[in-house]
Amino acid sequence: MTIEDLPFTLRSLRQAYAQGTRPTDVVKEAFRRLDAVADPGIFIHDAREKALAATRALGEPDGRPLWGVPFAVKDNIDVADMPTTVACPDFAYGAEADAFVVTKLRQAGAICLGKTNLDQFATGLVGVRTPYPVPRNALDTAIVPGGSSSGSALAVAHGFAAFALGTDTAGSGRVPAALNGIVGLKPTLGALSAAGMVPACRTLDTISIFAMTVADAWEVFETAAGYDPADAYSRKLPKPRLASLPPALRIGIPHAATLQTFGDAAQTDHFRVTLDRLRATGATIVEMDFEPFYAVARMLYEGAWVAERVAAVGPRLTEAPETLHQTTRAILEAGLKLTAVDTFKGIYRLKELSRVCEESLASVEALCVPTVPTVVTMADIAADPIGPNARLGTYTNFVNLLDMCGIAVPTGARADGWPGSVTFLAATGRDGLCAALGASVEAGRLGATDWPRPPAPLFIADPGPDEIALAVCGAHMSGLPLNGELTGCGARFLRASQTAPIYGLHALAGGPPFRPGLVRRSVGGDAIELEVWALPKERFGEFIAGVPAPLCIGTVALRDGTLVKGFLCESQGLSGGTDITGFGGWRAYLDHVSQSVEAEAVARVV
Amino acid sequence: MTIEDLPFTLRSLRQAYAQGTRPTDVVKEAFRRLDAVADPGIFIHDAREKALAATRALGEPDGRPLWGVPFAVKDNIDVADMPTTVACPDFAYGAEADAFVVTKLRQAGAICLGKTNLDQFATGLVGVRTPYPVPRNALDTAIVPGGSSSGSALAVAHGFAAFALGTDTAGSGRVPAALNGIVGLKPTLGALSAAGMVPACRTLDTISIFAMTVADAWEVFETAAGYDPADAYSRKLPKPRLASLPPALRIGIPHAATLQTFGDAAQTDHFRVTLDRLRATGATIVEMDFEPFYAVARMLYEGAWVAERVAAVGPRLTEAPETLHQTTRAILEAGLKLTAVDTFKGIYRLKELSRVCEESLASVEALCVPTVPTVVTMADIAADPIGPNARLGTYTNFVNLLDMCGIAVPTGARADGWPGSVTFLAATGRDGLCAALGASVEAGRLGATDWPRPPAPLFIADPGPDEIALAVCGAHMSGLPLNGELTGCGARFLRASQTAPIYGLHALAGGPPFRPGLVRRSVGGDAIELEVWALPKERFGEFIAGVPAPLCIGTVALRDGTLVKGFLCESQGLSGGTDITGFGGWRAYLDHVSQSVEAEAVARVV
Repeated sequence: MTIEDLPFTLRSLRQAYAQGTRPTDVVKEAFRRLDAVADPGIFIHDAREKALAATRALGEPDGRPLWGVPFAVKDNIDVADMPTTVACPDFAYGAEADAFVVTKLRQAGAICLGKTNLDQFATGLVGVRTPYPVPRNALDTAIVPGGSSSGSALAVAHGFAAFALGTDTAGSGRVPAALNGIVGLKPTLGALSAAGMVPACRTLDTISIFAMTVADAWEVFETAAGYDPADAYSRKLPKPRLASLPPALRIGIPHAATLQTFGDAAQTDHFRVTLDRLRATGATIVEMDFEPFYAVARMLYEGAWVAERVAAVGPRLTEAPETLHQTTRAILEAGLKLTAVDTFKGIYRLKELSRVCEESLASVEALCVPTVPTVVTMADIAADPIGPNARLGTYTNFVNLLDMCGIAVPTGARADGWPGSVTFLAATGRDGLCAALGASVEAGRLGATDWPRPPAPLFIADPGPDEIALAVCGAHMSGLPLNGELTGCGARFLRASQTAPIYGLHALAGGPPFRPGLVRRSVGGDAIELEVWALPKERFGEFIAGVPAPLCIGTVALRDGTLVKGFLCESQGLSGGTDITGFGGWRAYLDHVSQSVEAEAVARVV
Repeated sequence: MTIEDLPFTLRSLRQAYAQGTRPTDVVKEAFRRLDAVADPGIFIHDAREKALAATRALGEPDGRPLWGVPFAVKDNIDVADMPTTVACPDFAYGAEADAFVVTKLRQAGAICLGKTNLDQFATGLVGVRTPYPVPRNALDTAIVPGGSSSGSALAVAHGFAAFALGTDTAGSGRVPAALNGIVGLKPTLGALSAAGMVPACRTLDTISIFAMTVADAWEVFETAAGYDPADAYSRKLPKPRLASLPPALRIGIPHAATLQTFGDAAQTDHFRVTLDRLRATGATIVEMDFEPFYAVARMLYEGAWVAERVAAVGPRLTEAPETLHQTTRAILEAGLKLTAVDTFKGIYRLKELSRVCEESLASVEALCVPTVPTVVTMADIAADPIGPNARLGTYTNFVNLLDMCGIAVPTGARADGWPGSVTFLAATGRDGLCAALGASVEAGRLGATDWPRPPAPLFIADPGPDEIALAVCGAHMSGLPLNGELTGCGARFLRASQTAPIYGLHALAGGPPFRPGLVRRSVGGDAIELEVWALPKERFGEFIAGVPAPLCIGTVALRDGTLVKGFLCESQGLSGGTDITGFGGWRAYLDHVSQSVEAEAVARVV
């Protein structure tokens, strides 16, 4: 494969580097592709010289997860020694240091290609509110590029950045993904530090990630995530973990009366087709009243939160309004009239609506919505710069106000050829579940490229963020007498496995129920059959309360090298029992016993 | 004992009812005491006829926890068929239904005596900002009654209400307790529903409880607490449980440079004496920089939150300002000038300060502060209606902004005879710890009565139905490095104990953190020191997820014959470690190690 044909996905880049491709050639190729696209609206700051210098400084491949991976950064996020403009030239300053997230990515070996265009002050979902050249949609120049993270989405969609950073307050990390056929991962608020990002609405902002596939976006997210004491809105969250999909997921969608597509039948049809594909994965679709979510969405621009944007823009709105894009200015000026009393009333109203939305959400694991209700054309937005923009936020504006996480994924072309996309949304911290759902339906072209879609990632059967994996090796295994204690606590089966070959198994004295005891041994151990189940964290206490001595819950080493919680036995409790390690597992021992009993019975009869 | 001498504490009332006292006689006696006090400023609405009618309807004793117990309600909380005035006659309305909390208390058998006076719209800490007669301090009429919940505190301090409901936004549930020698329990926000309460600052308000003793306040809190879907700010919290005090508590206090008493040497001295009593219970006093807490406190009246009070008062501030108390009006008018931008900037600043305060709080289990920095006289407030009021909030204003809980307890008279009081404050949800701390130092007269102080309550050291007792014998014990993993999961200390004399203790190889391993032995075992903690069942999974091999959670036999869940160690994991059974426990071993290290250091120097 020539470098011109090399897909800039993580997997493909790693393969190329393993086979001797030079990262300088990759970065040069990135800029060759950019030049071939010939869209001066993508980058505000094209950093090709710095990128090549950084690439030369990489040295030899060293195993870092993003070694030599080119990426782009939205121009409201600081990269050291580059200007930050927020698409407002008068606001521009030279960044002295990398934003926290950029630091993490560069430390992982990624190469920054430059700073990308955006709707000024990240206010907009169309991508045309910029004093720089308006970037062109990668799939069809008749439709808007989508914003506010327009340039970052395009850098990925055109295949010269393997991933890009956007930001997402109202949907800026999802809408341009949808309109350019790529993935937009909008993390749980506080998962990615906002230190070094120019705020839009500081209480609602997050950095977001664009990539061709869910797998790539997820890997970047894992690398960039982490608590940052310098950002008061950063949160101490568990390390993100990609979930495997439970067999009985319930996914909420807007019921027919609240499915908004503004008359775009192709969008409605495409969404239905995507839902059918989701059902085929085993999910149950639950139709819900979306009006409470829309009521929250309306608060973002019609309520007090516009004042956060005014706070971010600073005195220029009143002192130098001519430095602002006229549409941006018109939107922000509404925020000047809002009082503190308006703000608190808005906060109360949001709290009340949140309560209603939380109740809806409690009945499902996640929501699935069209990322955008309809496609907006350049002609639409020329005719009305505000109305079509507002419509684009139908399914995105409520998300950060409700502290939800989400991911927009491409679902292939609609019947009319325009790009299809859905977004999965879930409660805070469930990013891994959203990503797994996204991966189950992502489809179609990779952005504007003709690269083959990589195979869907193989999810390890891991517990979800609210679960604990528990290895059971005795009467709790499926089909045995105590299995009901597990399923009664909401546990789900993950996989059958074996311990590392360092354990002994003993049939304990006493019973019924007859139980084995597993103990780790320094010598004479073997691999023991077990099953791994995922138990809801909040039910673990209830389950463990019923575990009698000498059994314990400790850590069990599995044959594949992983460690999981599991049943062990106090060594002192083995006395009076029988060493059954040689059977390799409890089931084999039970079979042996029942055959012996039968044999004895036969002997007695004879 | 005649009814005139009967202390209206829960214990004493129950004894009297058990011996045949009639509740109508108790309620008549309550009003006889009120009449004897002859303070027309206590009640805005004296409900004696309704109270007697409700008492007659009680029937025979039926085991309800507050059967026949008289209580008073601050007049910003609805009681059905009584007016709610908020000390603003023009605002008054007839309440159609009980507030959620009042419903719970009346369902438990309590009898409402009437509605009590307050600083108008609960804005003030002095208790004199009312168009009704200003109530008189129960202990010394030269000092202010304290507010805003003045009348409720007095109803308890004079001994005619066994408890009373106040509200607490800035300190209104604590300051009047301090100035009248009683207990003021300010729960975690959202633990008591605010449905049926007129808001002051809706994001910061809570109903609070006054009583003579911590035990009584706590029992009322348990009865009144519960999730209320009708209040968007109500929270699903575990049922409140009184904690017993761990042996190695760290209590933060302001260091000398930030201890503010405005030159009141008697207050400083009394606080020091109280801290000595606290040390005698085994607590370690940790001196801290309180400036970040004061910076938060200043935001309550100098920042955007005044606008919440404006929102609560409604259009009368501009349309009928003459209906407001002149001081209240002067304070609220500042809120009219605040913009939405000011508000969001305040929210950002609070978030940043909260981060700093959280870091301070993470190093201690609770804070102990003087409830008020100094005593304010009626003469002080006549000379300046605002300044002395602001000073009273020094140790109270920051608490709800930081989402902390607290309890103010009397600590006996200062050297000059004025009432002493401290407040214990802790992170959200740790109400039980604050109450246990309060009970360990509460002292002096019961309000203005000469009733004997009941013996301190005996805390039952058992896990509740939603908890699991867990024995810890190493670094999770109080004061040791991993204790925060327990308290971070909401665990509360139950008791110190020992194992049955059948265990061995080993210092494990590796670390830090250095850890011991407990194993049951057939021979050569001994009794090992441990602590039993109660962990909420639903957090057990989260806790156990962090327990590494070779440690397990199994069943531990205690010296008293009971079995509890507890830390054990895989026998195979002991290799490379040291048998330290002879030390009898991990603390004794740590002492030995640190002495050896010191001795070695000395030996090297010599």
